[in-house]
Amino acid sequence: MAENDSGIILHQGKDKAVRNRHPWIFSGAVRRAPHFEDGDILPVYSAEGDFLGSGYFNARCSIIGRMLTFDRTPPLQALEASIRRALSRRTPFFDERTTGFRLINGEGDECPGLIADFYAGVLVLQFSTRGMDRLKEFVLGLLGEILSPAAIYEKSNLPSRREEGLSSGESWLRGGPVPSVEILEDGLRFAVDIPDSQKTGFYLDQREMRRMARGLARGRRVLNAFSYTGGFTVAALAGGAVSADSVDLSARAMELCAENCRRNGFPGLGLGFHTADVFEFLRAGPLDYDFVVLDPPAFAKRKGDVMNACRGYKDIHRLVFQKLPPGALVMTFSCSHFVDEPLFRQVVFQAAREANRGVRILQRHRQALDHPVNIYHPESEYLKGFVLAVD
Amino acid sequence: MAENDSGIILHQGKDKAVRNRHPWIFSGAVRRAPHFEDGDILPVYSAEGDFLGSGYFNARCSIIGRMLTFDRTPPLQALEASIRRALSRRTPFFDERTTGFRLINGEGDECPGLIADFYAGVLVLQFSTRGMDRLKEFVLGLLGEILSPAAIYEKSNLPSRREEGLSSGESWLRGGPVPSVEILEDGLRFAVDIPDSQKTGFYLDQREMRRMARGLARGRRVLNAFSYTGGFTVAALAGGAVSADSVDLSARAMELCAENCRRNGFPGLGLGFHTADVFEFLRAGPLDYDFVVLDPPAFAKRKGDVMNACRGYKDIHRLVFQKLPPGALVMTFSCSHFVDEPLFRQVVFQAAREANRGVRILQRHRQALDHPVNIYHPESEYLKGFVLAVD
Repeated sequence: MAENDSGIILHQGKDKAVRNRHPWIFSGAVRRAPHFEDGDILPVYSAEGDFLGSGYFNARCSIIGRMLTFDRTPPLQALEASIRRALSRRTPFFDERTTGFRLINGEGDECPGLIADFYAGVLVLQFSTRGMDRLKEFVLGLLGEILSPAAIYEKSNLPSRREEGLSSGESWLRGGPVPSVEILEDGLRFAVDIPDSQKTGFYLDQREMRRMARGLARGRRVLNAFSYTGGFTVAALAGGAVSADSVDLSARAMELCAENCRRNGFPGLGLGFHTADVFEFLRAGPLDYDFVVLDPPAFAKRKGDVMNACRGYKDIHRLVFQKLPPGALVMTFSCSHFVDEPLFRQVVFQAAREANRGVRILQRHRQALDHPVNIYHPESEYLKGFVLAVD
Repeated sequence: MAENDSGIILHQGKDKAVRNRHPWIFSGAVRRAPHFEDGDILPVYSAEGDFLGSGYFNARCSIIGRMLTFDRTPPLQALEASIRRALSRRTPFFDERTTGFRLINGEGDECPGLIADFYAGVLVLQFSTRGMDRLKEFVLGLLGEILSPAAIYEKSNLPSRREEGLSSGESWLRGGPVPSVEILEDGLRFAVDIPDSQKTGFYLDQREMRRMARGLARGRRVLNAFSYTGGFTVAALAGGAVSADSVDLSARAMELCAENCRRNGFPGLGLGFHTADVFEFLRAGPLDYDFVVLDPPAFAKRKGDVMNACRGYKDIHRLVFQKLPPGALVMTFSCSHFVDEPLFRQVVFQAAREANRGVRILQRHRQALDHPVNIYHPESEYLKGFVLAVD
């Protein structure tokens, strides 16, 4: 029996991406596969029989395989090395003033299908693929040993699990239940309610932008639109904002937003908490603000949503550009996978044009350092944004 | 006589860019022009006779016109408003710990052809077009009145002046000669030798990246390649780098680099100053560094240079990726106009691939806040870069 009888064999010419260390194998690239159970780890060969590495496979998915290694290192050993590298990569970026961060960023850290976030001693894990789900005990054992977390929560609720043939599930795997965790970010306190939250608990990916908002807010009247639990509100107040209105559709988020303001010593004066639709809020009033943060949820969840999403983004920006006083700053984001930076920029340009207002880009989005993008896997980028100055 | 007899009339359909507030008019877009002297300010009309604004014109150039206003505001009044807006936009970003900054960023501030930088009381001006050159006295008067600078130096030495039919010229217009100015950036001291320098004296556009280097350098052995006068060297040392080697081909730059280290209290130990070709330096030795800054001059000065420039960028990155120890950080830039971010990223990707090394993007380039990009004029962007982590 030839060595490659037990492995995945790719079509001729379809080995290029894998040779370029791209971790994904699409089902159309596979010429022959042995019988396997979904989630099995298999070696991968080119049509010519060259060994290319190993990955886990799931026949139900269009991304049928995800590579764990591009050489002959045993796959679990390779995954362990990737996890250890990911952790050691974080060490220099954090200190006692920042206790919430992402430890493992999926493909960005060569750990496909695995997200691990750390909230002041509580580890939160997301397994998004069958292959990684099958490695849960291995991952738990390793992270438990290295980190000794006070508690571990599994929050495997990503929609991608359905395609993988997995059900969604959340539970405390060790320790817990922990009602609410307090994390620090640059010395600011945030209450994180892990089970009842967006993402794994907090928008860690906006850390650098909150830092920047803090640096720009002095003396400004701030509007935080789509505020969620008020990360930008607290950062702006810490930076010397003279007032801050937060708007979000979720009453629970608004409660936590107010709570987060209190925890950081910002009581009522000059603070507004509005449980409201942001579009209606922007349409209704004058916007007497000098600094507006627009951090909406993904408007385009599918490729087919892009046109509508862009219309939504444009409407928001036009309203803001029309109503803001001269000299105002706007920090704006899109986290839609399907709206890339050039397209988002085009939308902002059109909104400015329709408002007939001079608009300058002072800064582009700053990625949080614990959300690395693998140079071989550009797909892991999703967040884009600008800091704009309105004439 | 019709109103538009004394103005520029565009070809049908060639009004779109101007209507979108793009400041440039290409010679091919002009259907009819009255007799004018190079540098004259003229109104601009669409083929249908719609008034579009006013700009200055120079028949010698392919960019024949640059708009000063898109409405009926008198052009000099519009320029004054643009200058005043540019200045007030800077106010919130700077304090007594940062005394060197760009006040006017040409098209980025709707002041086409004009650069104004401020070095602790000394104003440095660059006029790059005939039209702006003709407005020199107006600009000098206005900036003199608002800023009361201790001295004004004109450094009109940009190569674009030749196309405009202007000679290059440098001189002290008021006060001076000032032998050397000391500026502060985030509390760090830098000697700036204005007449004998790159750009207007200092790479102000890298302020945010120096800030970031400072934040990443703790405990690291640093190599600053193409160091010029050592901005990144000083920033890294201030951030706790354990050693720093600086390499530049210019002996004069290396002198100032050593001087800048001394001024900030970093004497000899662990510091290396190498007047050398960076390519040769990278090829020659092992590279026992944990943090490398690569900030080369523009390799592609013309469109035809792009292929060669990319080869140069790739060589440098491959050498670095091959030789650096695991866990090292690389901060890398390209300031070539003709190498855009996707192309630069492709070059870095190929170098990583050839070195067969895992490489992650931790951060993209951060624009300095005093170098705004007009949303209607994307051409003013030129600097791109990444912070990379090598496995």
